Amino acid sequence: MEDNFRIGIVGGKGKMGSFFAKFFREKGYEVLIKDVDLGPSYEELCKTSKVILLSVPLDGFPQVVSELSPYVREENWVFDICSLKLDPVRIMRRYLKKGEVLATHPLFGPYEKSLKDRIIAYYPVRGKGIKAWFIELFSSAGAKLVYVPPREHDRMMGLIQVMNHFFLVLFGNILAGSKLDLKRIVDLSTPSFEGILQVLRRLAWQDENLYARIQLDNPFGRQFRRLFLRECKRLIKALDYSEDPEQIFKEKFIKAKLIAKELDRLLPRED
Amino acid sequence: MEDNFRIGIVGGKGKMGSFFAKFFREKGYEVLIKDVDLGPSYEELCKTSKVILLSVPLDGFPQVVSELSPYVREENWVFDICSLKLDPVRIMRRYLKKGEVLATHPLFGPYEKSLKDRIIAYYPVRGKGIKAWFIELFSSAGAKLVYVPPREHDRMMGLIQVMNHFFLVLFGNILAGSKLDLKRIVDLSTPSFEGILQVLRRLAWQDENLYARIQLDNPFGRQFRRLFLRECKRLIKALDYSEDPEQIFKEKFIKAKLIAKELDRLLPRED
Repeated sequence: MEDNFRIGIVGGKGKMGSFFAKFFREKGYEVLIKDVDLGPSYEELCKTSKVILLSVPLDGFPQVVSELSPYVREENWVFDICSLKLDPVRIMRRYLKKGEVLATHPLFGPYEKSLKDRIIAYYPVRGKGIKAWFIELFSSAGAKLVYVPPREHDRMMGLIQVMNHFFLVLFGNILAGSKLDLKRIVDLSTPSFEGILQVLRRLAWQDENLYARIQLDNPFGRQFRRLFLRECKRLIKALDYSEDPEQIFKEKFIKAKLIAKELDRLLPRED
Repeated sequence: MEDNFRIGIVGGKGKMGSFFAKFFREKGYEVLIKDVDLGPSYEELCKTSKVILLSVPLDGFPQVVSELSPYVREENWVFDICSLKLDPVRIMRRYLKKGEVLATHPLFGPYEKSLKDRIIAYYPVRGKGIKAWFIELFSSAGAKLVYVPPREHDRMMGLIQVMNHFFLVLFGNILAGSKLDLKRIVDLSTPSFEGILQVLRRLAWQDENLYARIQLDNPFGRQFRRLFLRECKRLIKALDYSEDPEQIFKEKFIKAKLIAKELDRLLPRED
């Protein structure tokens, strides 16, 4: 490894920051942690680190980038891990006039045991060095690197994160509000329903601040929520207020089944 | 095994009927198959079989039970595997005046590779022999037998089947209707979203007729669909039309997170 190839992590005390600090240290890198009232100044960070990782909440991102920006030098490499990409890329383009810049979104939380098969979306904003280094480093750790332009990224996350979280919170609230005993529900689950409960279970380790920002800041979020509500109303109308509920339900079921068959080809085998 | 301890399966050519025929044969039982225009008469079936398994669609169930009923003798044991229990138990009580009767609902489809850890809900309608035999046989094959009275059963299935299938069909239709590429969606999935896709994938092997009946015949189905819609509207109102969407979303997220934490204690570990 090059001399002075240190990694400076802004937000290094947070959950994702700690995850990456651990990862980089295990790979033999020296890591500098900066966080609120802790660690070096931005100036010092940029001088003593080659790579700057921006691991800060979405709502604090613009301020951090603008405060950091005067000290970023040509030889610095900067990457972010924000859950959205349109706005963060715009902000990095606006403020960071020097150095190489990479936008990334690790599609997993800080509680994953390994990077094996975990997906990281990336988009090179400027420079080839950081991109090559990042891809090589994380690929060799088992992650899957997927190139995604910012607009496509945010739109896909409207489905993959916004709509998914929306459903999970909705579903969790139905369970919380129902008079049904959760132990009994688990005891009487089908394999399908247990699969849904296993996904809901993952919320136990998730952060409400991050989930609120993802839900509210994704530029396509509202659109996907409305799509969800519209389809929900249509299905209820078909089942409870139509002339031939059985026929319409079967048509909709078969549509979903075709998607299921496509998924059966695309998804990795379970177990 | 007793002499003449044959199992007669009404609907033995169907998917679940075939699943059970295979199971019983592997356990060393002789199996008689009866299906539409196939196999012995009800009279002969009742004479030559000890146990009668009713494996017929919900909408054909009343007719089958009433046609079978005159031939059921004191020494016969009858059990059904309907996805609902209130109506089927009522029908069996009304028509079957002789013999022992057990209501069951295997909470899995005919494509499961083994009975290990699969759940079977049961409710003894009359007699102790069939119940003891059934529990012993299926427990020793690895299944979990859960006693559930009919009303509780149908209510639980309003959540576990009706609401779950409703969501999966809704979600499949959103994917089918969106312009997003499914391969790309899979490539950019989070572990959470991949979990949902894995559940949706299971629809590929499911039967639209059964799913339509479960959706439409469950006496608590409409109630659960309306609950789903109501919670969906509430959440959208909070996120898109309230003064403080972040605060309300966080409250709802934390409610769901508490359920997730309870699930973390109740559910078996994944992997």
